[in-house]
This record gives sequence, structure tokens and C-alpha cells, in this order.
Amino acid sequence: MSLTVVGSIAFDSVRTPFGERERMLGGSAVHFSLAASFFTEVRVVGPVGDDFGPRQGSVLQGRGIVTEDIEHVPGGETFFWRGHYDYDMNVAHTEDTQLNVFAEFDPKLSDGSRNADMLFLGNIQPDLQRRVRAECNGTSFAALDSMNLWIDTERDALTDVMGEVDCALLNDAEVRMLTGEPNLARAARSLMGMGPGVAVAKRGEYGAALFCQDEIFAIPGYLLEDVRDPTGAGDSFAGGFLGYLDKRRAAGDSPFDHAVLRQAMAYGSVLASFNVEAFGTERVAALTQDEIDERLRDFKRITHFEVG
Amino acid sequence: MSLTVVGSIAFDSVRTPFGERERMLGGSAVHFSLAASFFTEVRVVGPVGDDFGPRQGSVLQGRGIVTEDIEHVPGGETFFWRGHYDYDMNVAHTEDTQLNVFAEFDPKLSDGSRNADMLFLGNIQPDLQRRVRAECNGTSFAALDSMNLWIDTERDALTDVMGEVDCALLNDAEVRMLTGEPNLARAARSLMGMGPGVAVAKRGEYGAALFCQDEIFAIPGYLLEDVRDPTGAGDSFAGGFLGYLDKRRAAGDSPFDHAVLRQAMAYGSVLASFNVEAFGTERVAALTQDEIDERLRDFKRITHFEVG
Repeated sequence: MSLTVVGSIAFDSVRTPFGERERMLGGSAVHFSLAASFFTEVRVVGPVGDDFGPRQGSVLQGRGIVTEDIEHVPGGETFFWRGHYDYDMNVAHTEDTQLNVFAEFDPKLSDGSRNADMLFLGNIQPDLQRRVRAECNGTSFAALDSMNLWIDTERDALTDVMGEVDCALLNDAEVRMLTGEPNLARAARSLMGMGPGVAVAKRGEYGAALFCQDEIFAIPGYLLEDVRDPTGAGDSFAGGFLGYLDKRRAAGDSPFDHAVLRQAMAYGSVLASFNVEAFGTERVAALTQDEIDERLRDFKRITHFEVG
Repeated sequence: MSLTVVGSIAFDSVRTPFGERERMLGGSAVHFSLAASFFTEVRVVGPVGDDFGPRQGSVLQGRGIVTEDIEHVPGGETFFWRGHYDYDMNVAHTEDTQLNVFAEFDPKLSDGSRNADMLFLGNIQPDLQRRVRAECNGTSFAALDSMNLWIDTERDALTDVMGEVDCALLNDAEVRMLTGEPNLARAARSLMGMGPGVAVAKRGEYGAALFCQDEIFAIPGYLLEDVRDPTGAGDSFAGGFLGYLDKRRAAGDSPFDHAVLRQAMAYGSVLASFNVEAFGTERVAALTQDEIDERLRDFKRITHFEVG
């Protein structure tokens, strides 16, 4: 079992009402990889600069993540993001974005990454997503994320790559924006009409909803008393979701099986909940399988009701 | 079994992207009563003017609701609200509010209403809520709703009445505002510190969360493809929730039992989901028990996952 993720590797400087950190390891591919690493072998593809050293690499390698396709651009600097959150932790306020080496990112996949069983196309330019998707023509399940920028500026390219993936994992506002349909259930159906058999709408602290064929599944967010830094929650969700799907796929289950997809949604929610408990990768990098299993049971308990 | 609700009876003129209606029967006590009427005997206490006639009364009486404490104010006009919703149906835009007879509302309860087994204090001035609560001193479970206006202008009175009820049912933003705590789980705990053993945070289309002792329960909203008019959804939720609790209480269960509260949350969600499918009271007034039971089973299905 193996899962390749293509996306950003970053340094994040973040301030929230609960503290601040300078230049933490971050980026969509990093948060995704760490979450997925509890379920499968993860291979990460993304560019870094001279400021990315052994200390950063070891956070990933410490979780068994294959880093051979992290591309070091000599003389370059790693993608940098600075932002803050006020008490409404659902809204990130960007103060500075320096794309640096990410601006010229041209994904180069080794054979190992190209031949992975599953593929996650993080939020990069849609034509790059499409090229990587075509390279990984043996993958049994490909998923993508995107963002409002690409919906605005690269709609045709995004629509094209949508036709080539099995699953789209977007924020609910992005699903509405892409389809022009304000009702989420209708918007998800319209999104599936573009290609993906599975559509996942991430809803921040409110949880997530999954659409597959005529089935709908909705799950609230795990309610935490301590949310310190929401950066990367959506990527952690995606990593838990796809990592678990790949684990089940390797065990002989279909990643399109509804019961499997539901459990994957729950694992995604659990990984996202850990992610936001501390700054950057602090919590997920130090997580144990026992903690994940315990929180999953707790999550089941807080969402369970009987039909009398 | 019996449940008294004190609150507004109104005419609502509503426009949404899916149509508009003039002077529909509405108000918190009306939406609450109709939803609760599927589970218990409901008694409604609220003021109306000369414009409220037999046609309006029959909508309530047709569901077996006891209307003897609907107070007709001669020469007066019924509370009127005009508003609209854009594609984001989570936000109501008020165009006109005429309190009319509701401005001088001084609840008068018959013995039957005063001696009901359960009590719901709809969103009225907190001192009035407190007086009604004191009158109903034999009630076994009292709940209240409130709003940002009273949190702003009558905080002390609201805090006082909070100390006299068993359950607070508020929007999540109101729970945060009342307690000054941005984190919902902490805010709910702070709210329970004011008195109520049960706190319910309504989250609009995203569902609701319940807090009771150390237990937490969270449920997503039922995902609908057709949402035509969200007016009254929160009151329908409260009506389904408390109506079901009273039914179970009459059957010998404690309304503080966690399993019972969870089921009540599910019934509340189901009633709210029907409410928003059509304008005003159209859908809930014509609902059948079979439709409720079928949607509850469906709701269970779309929120259920197994822990492997």
C-alpha cells in the first residue's frame, strides 16, 4: 500500500489568540502526509529551498514518510505564509505569502511515487494536477483539492482535471462556487457530474459531508475545548481520509464502498481534530495510534443515537 | 403529558430565491407548537390582534393544539415580520418588524397551561420568562430560548432566568455572545454554570450540539436538496426536541437521560428539516407521523458509521 501526495511544503508563521510561532514546518503536502502516515506508506512530492534542512526532513522521516521526491531547489527559498486567526478560528487572515520555489514548481515523480496505489493532488495549478494524474496512470484512486483562486482563474483546466479523478475534496464554499449552486447537496451532485464518483465537502469546525452515487453521509466536527491553530486542518482531514482508504484498499476493500468511505470520513475528522489542538505539526507529529483509536471511539459516542 | 409554550404568534411576509408569500401564519410559538404536536399535547400562550381569525386558529387546532390561552387583544394587530433570504439561507434580512400586540404582551396562563408537565419559554423579554417560570412551579422540565437583543439589553434578567430553567436552547452565536467565550464547548459549559443542566446550541444548516453533565452530542443538519424558507427552523427544532422529551417523560424516562436527549436532538433536526422544505407552516402542518419516522431512519442512515 502506498499513497503519493503532490503539494506545497511551507514555512508558516502563525498567530492565534492562543499564541504564535515563527516559521513552523507546514504546507498542504506536509499536513496531509503526517495524517496519512498512520495508515499507509506516504510519498511526498514538493519543492523546498535552501532553508529546508535535515531538521524539517526528519519530522516527515520520523513518521516513515518517503521524502526522496522532495525537490531541493538550490539557491531558492521555501514557500512562506504568514497569517493570523482572531477568535473566529474559521477565518484565516493572510498577512504575507511568498511563493518562492513553489512559483516554478514542476512536479518530478520517481518511479516509486508514480506507481503508488493512490494519489492525492494537493492544491496546485490544475494543469500540473492533470499532468501528474496522467503520469500516475496505474493508480487505483486519485483525489484532488483545489481553491477559490483556481476556480476564478483556471476554471476550464480545473474542470478538465475533475474529469480525471475519483474524488474531489473541497471546502463547502468552493463546491458552491465551482458549481454556481448555493444548495450543498445539489452542488455536490453537480460536482460529481464533472467526473469524480466521490465528493467530499469540508465544512471547517462543522465537520464534513460525503456524496457517492445516491448516498449522503454527514458528520459534525469533533468538538474540542482547545483549538490553538486551525492551519492545515483540511489537509489533515484529507490525509486521514485517503490514508485510511488506502489501508482498506490494500486489505481488499473497495475505496468506493460506502461503509469504508464513512469510516474514512471519521478518521479524517479525528486527524483534523488533533491537528488543530496545537501549532503547526506539533500534535500530529507526536501522535500515537492508540490516541487515534481512542478518539475515534469517542467520536462515535458523541455522534451516536438510536432509532427507537 | 402536556407542554406549554409561551411566545410569539405572527404574520410573516417572506421572500426567498424560491418564491414569496404574504402574511403567512408564523411566530416562534406557532412553529414550536406544530412540531411538538406530533409527540405530546401542546398548549400555546401568546397574543394576537383582530387580524387573527378562525382560519389561523384552525391550523393549530387541526394538529390538536390547545389554543384557549391565545389572547385576543381587541383593536390590536398581530405581530408582523417581513424579511427575505438570499442564496445564503443562513442569514435572514429583516425589512420590517411591527411588534403590535406583542409589545405589551403580559402572559396569562390558564390552570391547564400552568400545570403542564413541561414548559418552553420562547424568545420573550427575560423578566416575563422568569414570571411565567415561577407560575409554572410544578413543571418537571423548563426550557428557554432567547436572542441577541436580550443578551445586549437585559443580560442580568436573562442570567436570572437561566438559573431557573433546566435547558437552554440557543443559536451557537448566542451561546458564544452570552458567555463571552469563542469556543463552543467552553461556552456551553459556561452557560451550564448559570443553571441549565442541558445546553443545546443550534447551528442552522450545520445541525446542533448538546451538552449535559460531561456528555457531548453533535449532529449535522439533515442535508436537503430543496430548502425554500428557513423561517422558524430553530423553533421547529425546539418543538420536536421538547415534544419528544415530554413523550418519553410521560412513558417513565428521565428527560435528563443521555440516550433520550440524543433521540430528542434527532427528532428536533427532523422537524426542522421538514419546516424549511416549504414556506411558513405549510409542510409541518400537513406532515404525517410516518413521514417523520421515515426521515428519522434516513437521518440515522446518513450519520451512521461503524468503528472497525
